[in-house]
Amino acid sequence: MMSDRNDSAPAATAMLREAREAPQVVARLLEGNAALCRELGERLRASPPPFAVTCARGSSDNAATFAKYLLEIHSGLVTASVGPSVTSVYAARPRMRDALFLAVSQSGRSPDILHLANAGREDGALTVALVNDTSSPLASTCEIVLPLQAGPEKSVAATKSFIAALAAGLQLVAHWSQDESLLRALDTLPEVLEQASAADWSAALPLLSEADNLFVVGRGVGFAVAQEAALKLKETAGVHAEAMSAAELMHGPWTLAGDHFPILVLSQRDETLSGVSDLVTKLGEQGVPVVVAGAAEGPASVTLPSVENAHPYLAPIAMIQSFYPLVNGIALARGRNPDNPPRLRKVTETV
Amino acid sequence: MMSDRNDSAPAATAMLREAREAPQVVARLLEGNAALCRELGERLRASPPPFAVTCARGSSDNAATFAKYLLEIHSGLVTASVGPSVTSVYAARPRMRDALFLAVSQSGRSPDILHLANAGREDGALTVALVNDTSSPLASTCEIVLPLQAGPEKSVAATKSFIAALAAGLQLVAHWSQDESLLRALDTLPEVLEQASAADWSAALPLLSEADNLFVVGRGVGFAVAQEAALKLKETAGVHAEAMSAAELMHGPWTLAGDHFPILVLSQRDETLSGVSDLVTKLGEQGVPVVVAGAAEGPASVTLPSVENAHPYLAPIAMIQSFYPLVNGIALARGRNPDNPPRLRKVTETV
Repeated sequence: MMSDRNDSAPAATAMLREAREAPQVVARLLEGNAALCRELGERLRASPPPFAVTCARGSSDNAATFAKYLLEIHSGLVTASVGPSVTSVYAARPRMRDALFLAVSQSGRSPDILHLANAGREDGALTVALVNDTSSPLASTCEIVLPLQAGPEKSVAATKSFIAALAAGLQLVAHWSQDESLLRALDTLPEVLEQASAADWSAALPLLSEADNLFVVGRGVGFAVAQEAALKLKETAGVHAEAMSAAELMHGPWTLAGDHFPILVLSQRDETLSGVSDLVTKLGEQGVPVVVAGAAEGPASVTLPSVENAHPYLAPIAMIQSFYPLVNGIALARGRNPDNPPRLRKVTETV
Repeated sequence: MMSDRNDSAPAATAMLREAREAPQVVARLLEGNAALCRELGERLRASPPPFAVTCARGSSDNAATFAKYLLEIHSGLVTASVGPSVTSVYAARPRMRDALFLAVSQSGRSPDILHLANAGREDGALTVALVNDTSSPLASTCEIVLPLQAGPEKSVAATKSFIAALAAGLQLVAHWSQDESLLRALDTLPEVLEQASAADWSAALPLLSEADNLFVVGRGVGFAVAQEAALKLKETAGVHAEAMSAAELMHGPWTLAGDHFPILVLSQRDETLSGVSDLVTKLGEQGVPVVVAGAAEGPASVTLPSVENAHPYLAPIAMIQSFYPLVNGIALARGRNPDNPPRLRKVTETV
């Protein structure tokens, strides 16, 4: 299913260059943070937290969603995404004592994130920062810092730091559970990402670059990267892409899909697979153009190559890696510079 | 700011008829469930739960988001929206012992909701069902049932049952905290809803019925009704409307907004107000057409009347009440029957 890197690959924007660094970033992260994660895992096994809280915005919040699914499914820990406005705007103080508190941020500087992290620390949560800039205020606020190891990121659109945040969350739950097969799979992540980076998704370019509207569907552990793909399509390509869980899609929104409103399905080989394949079949029967990446089968308009036999927790990370060259190509085909989207800056600070 | 009901009001679809019943439904609910809520409040004060879990899909999940903000801001309880697939598809068992578990559902029959509710009950959570059909399996599964008192709902688009679910969540937190001013405000909710139902939002009809894409912005306790407004615009009017928190909008998505992509802002007079007003100003400066409902000020293209001096927790409920005739009108203007959207049925069952 894998092809060599396409010679007609889109121009090397900063976004694309940085996305291609992700496999090395993840190799560095897995090595650099292993001891920290082992120690943190030991501590979590000794004093299991009653629940977890995530704290993030934008792409980092999508990485936090990935951590939420892993924590709930793999670690058995209910995980709440708390809106930073709860403490920063409303000055509320929800109880977080003994909870595992995960802040995710590239810059570590947005005041609202710092505010909620401070509230967590003061209330006695175990605060952990997944942060790229280890000299940031967020790194000082949290008790434990898992550096994202992504190096400087110049493009407005986060890529390597996003993949690093996914990997950091996975590394944490793997060491916490000491699940041998997951730990072995984790070791293969840089190689899986190299393969995913070389996968040619350009077959989807004609259909998706013509679309002004799109749903990106994921389910379970794959939902977070559907959210991220939709955000990247918005930011860099000016497409109104919206993420939708496979379940929510059928509750109403799929009434919108059709000829000029295709659906991109990101799927992985796990317990969600048969449901997602059924969805692809149903959409196909209704004549909705569907692009399928991953393991799902059905009457797709376009099927995209994915890394075979990847562990289901690794598969979503591989999928977003393969998606970056595609979204870069869609942006360029629509006459946009993905490095410089209208009206956006790299660091958004909200209060 | 209030006008009498417009004589040129859109045709009385089932959706609109049912929406107009909401004030009476809420009056019935507040009276019918008061003793239950007092008792539940007493129990929660005696044994404060460590965190809360919500369990819902579709519109009911938007009502659960309202409850989440109230629980976090007013009750000081971190609240996790757990995806039903975590238990129903992945067969995971996240720990919920002693948690407050809120299931929200009109029909009480979707297998995935039942699955998660069962898991909560088995693990020792305090399970509470906000459910319209009190003969449903969900009502039997949960320890405590707060009936939504909405009566039969025929339209595919939930309206009165959605408003009832918002009111039920608010009634629960009000009795839990025994906050006298909130309890007094709650008593006025049916009257506030009557006023909101009569508010004329048709000034937004020309702009919004021309738009194929839209962001609906809310913040804090108003975010849930922004989600619901977006879902209703999708389901009934075929508009690709997406809800966005005011904070997330500025992290990237606002690059899409412009002449053919307006923004509807739902705001309330609380701690979020100055930030939301700043947002309206910023959008106006960029030439983005903005429709503003509620307290926010700024250079809006259209300003919609809202009930003056409503308690900030009541204001979002009033806003969605005023929104229903507008979305009904948008659907009709776009040649759609809001009672019978393409491809949708009243009860969606997902596993």
